Order: sequence, then C-alpha cells, then structure tokens
Amino acid sequence: MNWTRHHILGLADWVAPEYDILLQTASSFREVLSRRTKKVPALQGQVVTNMFFEPSTRTRSSFELAAKRLSADILNFSPGSSSLSKGETILDTAKTYLAMGTDIMVIRHKQAGVPQAIAAEMDRLETGVCVLNGGDGQHEHPSQGLLDLFTLCCLLDSDNPRVDLLKGKKIAIVGDILHSRVARSNIWSLTKAEAQVHLVGPPTLVPQFFTQMATQLPGDQLFLHWDLEPALRGADFVMTLRLQQERMTAHLLPSLREYHQRYGITRDRLKLCHPQVKILHPGPVNRGVEISSDLMDDREFSLIQQQVTSGIAVRMALLYLLGTLNS
Amino acid sequence: MNWTRHHILGLADWVAPEYDILLQTASSFREVLSRRTKKVPALQGQVVTNMFFEPSTRTRSSFELAAKRLSADILNFSPGSSSLSKGETILDTAKTYLAMGTDIMVIRHKQAGVPQAIAAEMDRLETGVCVLNGGDGQHEHPSQGLLDLFTLCCLLDSDNPRVDLLKGKKIAIVGDILHSRVARSNIWSLTKAEAQVHLVGPPTLVPQFFTQMATQLPGDQLFLHWDLEPALRGADFVMTLRLQQERMTAHLLPSLREYHQRYGITRDRLKLCHPQVKILHPGPVNRGVEISSDLMDDREFSLIQQQVTSGIAVRMALLYLLGTLNS
Amino acid sequence: MNWTRHHILGLADWVAPEYDILLQTASSFREVLSRRTKKVPALQGQVVTNMFFEPSTRTRSSFELAAKRLSADILNFSPGSSSLSKGETILDTAKTYLAMGTDIMVIRHKQAGVPQAIAAEMDRLETGVCVLNGGDGQHEHPSQGLLDLFTLCCLLDSDNPRVDLLKGKKIAIVGDILHSRVARSNIWSLTKAEAQVHLVGPPTLVPQFFTQMATQLPGDQLFLHWDLEPALRGADFVMTLRLQQERMTAHLLPSLREYHQRYGITRDRLKLCHPQVKILHPGPVNRGVEISSDLMDDREFSLIQQQVTSGIAVRMALLYLLGTLNS
Repeated sequence: MNWTRHHILGLADWVAPEYDILLQTASSFREVLSRRTKKVPALQGQVVTNMFFEPSTRTRSSFELAAKRLSADILNFSPGSSSLSKGETILDTAKTYLAMGTDIMVIRHKQAGVPQAIAAEMDRLETGVCVLNGGDGQHEHPSQGLLDLFTLCCLLDSDNPRVDLLKGKKIAIVGDILHSRVARSNIWSLTKAEAQVHLVGPPTLVPQFFTQMATQLPGDQLFLHWDLEPALRGADFVMTLRLQQERMTAHLLPSLREYHQRYGITRDRLKLCHPQVKILHPGPVNRGVEISSDLMDDREFSLIQQQVTSGIAVRMALLYLLGTLNS
Repeated sequence: MNWTRHHILGLADWVAPEYDILLQTASSFREVLSRRTKKVPALQGQVVTNMFFEPSTRTRSSFELAAKRLSADILNFSPGSSSLSKGETILDTAKTYLAMGTDIMVIRHKQAGVPQAIAAEMDRLETGVCVLNGGDGQHEHPSQGLLDLFTLCCLLDSDNPRVDLLKGKKIAIVGDILHSRVARSNIWSLTKAEAQVHLVGPPTLVPQFFTQMATQLPGDQLFLHWDLEPALRGADFVMTLRLQQERMTAHLLPSLREYHQRYGITRDRLKLCHPQVKILHPGPVNRGVEISSDLMDDREFSLIQQQVTSGIAVRMALLYLLGTLNS
Repeated sequence: MNWTRHHILGLADWVAPEYDILLQTASSFREVLSRRTKKVPALQGQVVTNMFFEPSTRTRSSFELAAKRLSADILNFSPGSSSLSKGETILDTAKTYLAMGTDIMVIRHKQAGVPQAIAAEMDRLETGVCVLNGGDGQHEHPSQGLLDLFTLCCLLDSDNPRVDLLKGKKIAIVGDILHSRVARSNIWSLTKAEAQVHLVGPPTLVPQFFTQMATQLPGDQLFLHWDLEPALRGADFVMTLRLQQERMTAHLLPSLREYHQRYGITRDRLKLCHPQVKILHPGPVNRGVEISSDLMDDREFSLIQQQVTSGIAVRMALLYLLGTLNS
C-alpha cells in the first residue's frame, strides 16, 4: 500500500496499513533526530502555515520544529493581532495564506469541524493544499493520537513499530473522556490496532453514550467504567487525560482533590496493573491531580517525556507524507 | 535606467521607469515562486527587521515570507512586549535594531511619517540601512500600491508587465478614500501610468479637497464622484477599499447595510462596467459590505487572491532591489 | 586553559582565563559579522529555545539573531499563550522543550534562581542540555555583563580584547544598584579584571550592605557613594543603569526630574571624568533621565550602540562555546 491521504483530519477512518506507513516513516525520522545534524532537506522551499486559532505553545512548537527539521519555511498565524478581529471569515483567512503560497496548513480551533471546512474549500478550489488538524474542539487531535501510538509501538518493538504489536493489550484511558479530543483519536487508533480500550472516569465525564462508539467497532473492544479498579486491573498501559479546571466551574466535578482521590493514578493503584505498566499523559500535567507527582517523574513508569519526543518524529512524518504527495 | 532608490517611503515621487524596473523584477520572482524550490540565496546573511508598531498579520506574513524566500534572516519586533512600553523612543528602538545588524527595516505605524523619520535618521547617521514603509497612518502603503499595479499589469500582459499597459484605462476606486493609505498610493501609481482614476464614495469619505491632488497631475486623470454610477460606467477595473467599522462610530457613515446599498459592488452594478471588468480589494474584506459575497468568490471577476500572490513577488522585488543596492 | 563551563548562570565564580576565552571568541565572531554573509554553520541542526517568562524584545532578539547566525534552529516560548497558564510547573515546561530536542535553553524570569533550578534539573537528569541565564530577577544578567566587558576591552585594544586591559581603570556605576541584575554581573566581571568600581546613587538604591560584597574581593576594589562627584572624578568609564518607573511608586525616589538633577549624566558633569571618558547604558534609555538627551547621541562619548552590537558577538560566542562543548 502507498500513502494516498491528502488531509489529516481525524483517525476515525484510518486503516491498519496507513498506521503502519506512518509508524515506519516516523521511525526513520527518529533516527535522523539522533544524528548530530538533525535536518533533512525534504520540504525545502515548501511553506507550512501554523494557524492556531486556539492558543497553544506545546503543539505549535512541536509542529514548528518538525517543519524546520524538514527544511520547510514556516508562517505562524497569530489570531491575537489578526484580520479576524477585523471581521474576516476563517475561510477567507485560509485563502489568504493559500494565495501567499502555503503548501500545508496546520489548523487548531476550539470549534470542531473547522479543519474539515477549510480542507473542503481547498479541495473545491483544487488548490492542492494539505490540511492537518492540530486539534479541533472535542472532535479529534490526530497527531496526538499518532504520537501516543508511536510511543507505545516503539516500546514494544523499537526497531519495527507496527500496530499489530498492540493486539490484545489492555489500555485504560482515565479522566474527562467526554470533552477530550485526545481520547477520541486514541479510541480510533487503539481499537483499530485491536487493543482492548477501557474508558474510566466519573459518570458526568464518561457518559453512557460512549458505548455507542463501540457498536461501530468489530468485536468487544471498548469498555466503560465509573470505578478505577476494573479499568486498571491487568492494564498494560494507562493513558491519563488532562483535567481542565473549567469542568469544576461547570459543576461536572466536585474538586481537584476529590478527583485525585477517586481517579488519580498513584503508586498504590498501579499495583492493580500489569507489572510492566507504563503511564501516558498528553500534557500539560496538573501535578498531583491526574497522576501523583512522584510517579510522574519516575522513568520506570512514565512515558510522558517519550511522548513529547515522539511528537517531533510523528509530525515530521505527517508533514513529509503530505508534502511529498504534493510534489 | 538603473535602480537607485534607497528607501521605499511612498509612491508620490516615483517615475515611470522605476515602476517598470519593479514590475520586471517582480515578474522574475513570480517565476521563482512557480518552481518546486521557491528560494533564492540573494539576501543570504542579510537581516530584515519587521517593525510593525500597528498590529498586522497579513502584511507582516507577506514580508516575512518574501524575506525568507530570498534567504534573509528575519527579526520580528513586537510592540506588545517591547521596550516601547518601557519609555524608549521609536528612533532609539530603530537604532537598537540597527546596532544589531539590521540591513532593511520594514516599518508600519499608525502615525503618518514614522518611516520617513526613521529613514532620515538612518541617513543622517550614514548607516546604509534601507527603510520600507509597510503602511503609515493615512499617508501611504507603497507595497500595496505596487502589488495592485503588478496585478493589473500582469493581467494585461503576463510576460511583460509595464506601466504603459494602463494608459487610458478607467479605474474606479470605491469607498473610504479619505482615510485610506492604500487609495493614496494607488492614485500616485495609476495616474503616473496615465490611467483615468475615478474616486467614488459618500461625501464624508470623498471630500472635495481631493481635487487638489489632481492639480499636481498632468492632464485630466483624477475625477471625484459621490454616486457610484458615473464612476463604474465603462470601468476596466474597480478597486474597492476596506470599510473600517470605526467610521461608523465616528458618524461618518450611517450603517454597513446602507453603505452596501449605495456603494457596494454587486453583480447588477457590474453591468455598468466594461464586460471584462475585474475587482480588487486589499483585504481583509467585510463580506457583503464592500462587495457582495458571491461576487467576491467569482474568479471571473475577482482579483483578490491574485493580489495576495502578487504581494509576495512584489515584496521580494522590493527587498531584492534595496538589499542588492547595499552590497 | 580550555572552556569547560556547561551553563552560564552568573559571573560570580568566573575566573580571568574564562573571560579571556569568551572575549577572544566574541572577537572572532565580530569579524564574521563584518563580512557580507554573516553566517557560520557552527550550530547547524542544534536547537536553541528562548524561554522568556518575562517579556523582552531587545535581549530575545539579540539571542535569536546570534543563534540564527550560527545556523541553529530557534524555538520561541511565549508565556502569554502557554501551558503555564494551564497550571504546568516551570520545570515541566523546561522538560517538555528538552524532550523536543532542545540543546541550549536561554531563560529569563522575574524571579531570581529559576535558570539555576532548571540547570540543576537538567544535570540531575543527565540531559546534556546547557542553560544560559538571560536575566533572573535581581540576581544576574551575565550576557549583559559580558557584552559590557567586551565593549570596554575592544575599545582599549580592538585586536586583542582581554581582561588585564581594565586593571586599575576607574569605572563608575550610577543609579539603581539595589534592583539591578546588570550591576551585579558587572561588579563581578570588573572587579575580577582588577578595575576600581565605584557604585553611586541615592541611599535608598545604593544601600550600605553592598560594602559586604567588597569583603569577598581581594584588595580595595569596590566603593560606595551617595554623591555623584567623587564617583565621577577621574573615571575612565561611566555605566548608567536604567531607572525603572516602578521605583517611584514604591517611594524609593521622589521624581524622575529630581533624579536627573542629582544623578543624571550631563556634559557638565562629564568634565569631572577622564578627558576620554565613555558612557554605557544597557538600554532601553529614559532620555533625559539617566543621561541628558544630547550626550546620549554624542558618539564621542556614548558606547550605547556599540554595546548592542557587542551583544550579538558575545551571545554568538556563548552559544558557540556551550554548543560545541556538547558535541
């Protein structure tokens, strides 16, 4: 199979061979990043525009560095001082950056569907521009899902990461599933890899309707829990999600302290899991809330730093696959 | 004639051969931009500093990408977190960037005359630094005027854009002429090209004193209208200007809706013009105010995207002409 | 002696040979900056991350341009739109940029000790990352101290700048010593160079306890004054410090006008100094407060522009020494 996907909008419709191409491409870039000169000329002269309508340092920096290491030129659109405040529509802003010569747009927006709308317009106008969803509302965050997948697969076989390594593995996703685009992207990739995915959190944040997602999946792969214990029991991996303070003010949660008491990952609770269990978190972490502070720094268990490092290789791979498709 | 101009402060004193050098240089860069690798090493090692005291995404990005494609190093000065808030004068800020090794300064300021003042200081100190006006108050926006000119001339003869192509063409400029630096720069370039320029808008925004500008021009080239019809009749090009919401609060206009009814460009009104008429707008557009929304997207009539694309080539040409003069 | 220092956190413990290596390295980069192509490939593929938790344009731009001229890739962390506002700790933010592949971190923070804390964590984790203090609270601003030193030594022997040139020179540091990290770094470097350093300012801003610093120094090298005259008499150099408006609201000073009357450097007061006296200021200057406006522009006396230019060469030297140590 060859790579044919022109936009990265979400993982819902990805098939296993696509994941494997991505994992192998990211693997080869991970090797580039271990060299002294960590650059390749693959996208020289191409323009990557970061359009982050929602503020972000971490993801934007990761895409920016990935693009720089492919020798692309980067434009950073900053909504603060922009034409948007002058009444321009988002599509018109995108078309302006298109007309300047953008080849790949990375788009983050607090509203779900914005990257899709821009991609549709780019296709309608036959522009050839590729759109990469950098996180849209509560819909998807595909590059995060892919970097999580890459981190897991590399741990299982560093030289040859591929999705079949995750078959039958038990993975708990803990926290605010309802509002999390990270959780959604991970559910798609991990179930496609035939892992067993256990969602767990308070009923307000893990509503019953998530079982409907399961009906779209072959076999018994998606499970819901409101108690931590059955989700953690024998788990190979525990993915914690960032808890947003806004959920408290919306009365979906009593307090950070109570959340940690019921759903925080601690050394004690880890004993329920597989002895070699590893913990993930997309960051930024609220220390002592989602994970106890000492556990977060314990490199025997925490994959948090590897996730960030994987992010560069995975985003280089995404930009590379889209950028070379263009040429 | 060779290029000798050291600063680009405004188009008021440009002569026809200068326009032609600029158009030909931009034309050669347009060719570079159509290649796979859209970069040339012309300004390698030179430093272009964007000093945008007035917020801007569009123009700043355009200059930034133009500079990158000439392989220059870019510094972006951002007034928000700057020494200005610490009481430093604008001239001292400019001298600091001079001392860091800046070769070309692109300056935007809400007050007319700031780029001129900085250029005068740079000359007085015999620094060799070139100043490029990125828009100063209601005075001039020369790079916008030149990209409009380039867009028009390329349409008339793509292979050999030059000002004499516009001789005798009827060009309507519609809207808030009074407050528009874009209109002023365009009036200078288009009348020098011996086009017939028709200014039209409400009396509050197209005051009688604009006729005085006409007295500085040879022949009958500048006309004022308060009704759209005589301005559009037989027009080859219609330049619309951005309407700023602030004009409403200043009671210079009743409402956006009424403005659109009297001066908005619609498919119906376009019938008054030459059958091959084209519409321009410097952006960002208020959809449905200056131009009806469907017309804006109609590539038979709208040159808006081409203007943005021309912007990169024209700004590369300006930076190139100034930067190579330096060496 | 070879360069072995892995972090630049402050100048308090620097020894003379280290200063000389830095001055010689900066001198060779000053030569690079005088060429047409002002770039060298020394740090190609390495990543320099600017983490300026405190807003800054001047110092950040200087580090950015220095890094670009060494062909490094730059990441700019901007606290405004960052994970910090999402509750992440500073150490976790630093570890995120570490995991992205940062080689050198330049850190500015309003709180003293932050660069030290990050450097300690980087060492504890055996990361190999170098930390460069870009100014921490009222503690130190070593790159400013070094660029001042380089400016002085180059003036005394342009071809061979070295610390022994300053032996016995009288240097007055005027103004808000108490709150100045610039003053502290300069005191360490200048006394190590065996210059005679005279601190002068109002008693609220030059407290008696600064004499305790003198006890750590060999010989009679540090003097305190509350009147300008004895400090200026026969001085070879006058370093003025920026007066911050906040000091007024804290009732440490009556008014800017009164400050200028008692401690402002004017042409008249300069007659007390050595006939070839030169004036320095770290910028941004409050014109007419620390220095009279005409004197500031007088290139016979003012070294302010040279300081900014030295800043690029000195920061290139620092990044180069740290970056090549890494490889």
